[in-house]
Amino acid sequence: MLIYGRNAVLEALREGQVTRVMVAKGIQPAAHKELLGAARRAGAEFEEVPRIQLDQALRTTNHQGVAAELPEVKVAELEDAYALASQRHERLLLVFLDQLTDPRNVGAIIRSAEALGAHGVIMEERRSAPLSAVVVKASAGATSLLPIIVVTNLVRTIEQVKERGVWVYGAAPPTPGEPVTTPDLIDWDRDAAIVIGSEGTGMRRLVRERCDELVTLPMRGRIGSLNASVAAGVLLYCVQQGRAAPSSSAARRTPPPKD
Amino acid sequence: MLIYGRNAVLEALREGQVTRVMVAKGIQPAAHKELLGAARRAGAEFEEVPRIQLDQALRTTNHQGVAAELPEVKVAELEDAYALASQRHERLLLVFLDQLTDPRNVGAIIRSAEALGAHGVIMEERRSAPLSAVVVKASAGATSLLPIIVVTNLVRTIEQVKERGVWVYGAAPPTPGEPVTTPDLIDWDRDAAIVIGSEGTGMRRLVRERCDELVTLPMRGRIGSLNASVAAGVLLYCVQQGRAAPSSSAARRTPPPKD
Repeated sequence: MLIYGRNAVLEALREGQVTRVMVAKGIQPAAHKELLGAARRAGAEFEEVPRIQLDQALRTTNHQGVAAELPEVKVAELEDAYALASQRHERLLLVFLDQLTDPRNVGAIIRSAEALGAHGVIMEERRSAPLSAVVVKASAGATSLLPIIVVTNLVRTIEQVKERGVWVYGAAPPTPGEPVTTPDLIDWDRDAAIVIGSEGTGMRRLVRERCDELVTLPMRGRIGSLNASVAAGVLLYCVQQGRAAPSSSAARRTPPPKD
Repeated sequence: MLIYGRNAVLEALREGQVTRVMVAKGIQPAAHKELLGAARRAGAEFEEVPRIQLDQALRTTNHQGVAAELPEVKVAELEDAYALASQRHERLLLVFLDQLTDPRNVGAIIRSAEALGAHGVIMEERRSAPLSAVVVKASAGATSLLPIIVVTNLVRTIEQVKERGVWVYGAAPPTPGEPVTTPDLIDWDRDAAIVIGSEGTGMRRLVRERCDELVTLPMRGRIGSLNASVAAGVLLYCVQQGRAAPSSSAARRTPPPKD
């Protein structure tokens, strides 16, 4: 997939996501030099092409004479996520995205999932943000490091993983006056999945009903919820913390004697 | 400030951020009806104007015949943050943003800061994302609920709050092989500030050197860092957790005897 514009290309180069840079013949020498240097540092191919070739490939003339190729997102299978967990000798951790439509949120969640030790991100084919260059860029390249699984029916996939022993936790905003399960109350030391609902309306009812439990991040302010990718990041961090320190978390439950 | 386009306006109406909707005379009856209904539900003014008035006000003709007015971000003073903390009988919690240029990150951080109990967000006038409609929208309206403080010199303001007894923690990505201070090792039960560095290059050296301590979120994957707004959200959540449960955190440090 192609991105264009000087800043976008330079940033993607800095992040090591670019396989090939194309500049239009006749761009300003300073821009040419800067792009060539950045491409070399990133180990990306560098090619000069007629400007009209960029116009045609990008279907716009608004490319400032530069485009870059990012790798396509390779879609994986659910089994790849299981294999990754098993290869790392870790409890499975999956992230389900229920109709997230903002590609930057999807990308940021994939980045957090990879950085915080999840084994796969699962989304539905319809009504999800397409796996575009925006997703790849927002993921900081994590789309090529983590199994990204696109399914036709999210509810059915949730049921499948439950049958295989995975505990499914749906992220839900606090409901005033109702008791909530906060992440620190959950024993994360088992195969688990978290479900993130869409930006506007949260999880669909059918998805929510399939969850074993709802998990809520307590809030203090008048804004009752976080951005979807922030909420996902906080939850994934809590899971990592719950898994990282079995000794300290055990200590919290059965504290050693005072000295 | 004005936003435009049907989806953007409808979404801002749903989020209760709009004071006034303007539609061009002669837009399709179905769109007119939908916007009028949404404006009424949101308690926003609704006005029909000549299309050319929108063209001129927005400096584009690409507005689909609808614009909406959002309240301007009212810039506050540092004292407003102190006052808010004191009024709530809480330890001060400030968020410094060092040259964050992405308005969606800035907005998402302001949203997290409000939702998770901070008392003010401080940024530098130059080289920060301007407080645009994108920031307001990404903040889900938190820009009008939390003191947003714009200063000319972030380093000087950090020094000022340190002189008044605030502990300043800079968020830094892990450095391979170096020991890190994770958020759970910090006693958050005192006046504190966290500093978030820019998306590309992190904190400036001068800012980093002013921090009392660097705090790092441990990562597990090959992507070594989170999106800036996700990292800020996780840190703010950790601070909230560290403050919310003084008894359990005390218990963790000096555990009671086993029974």
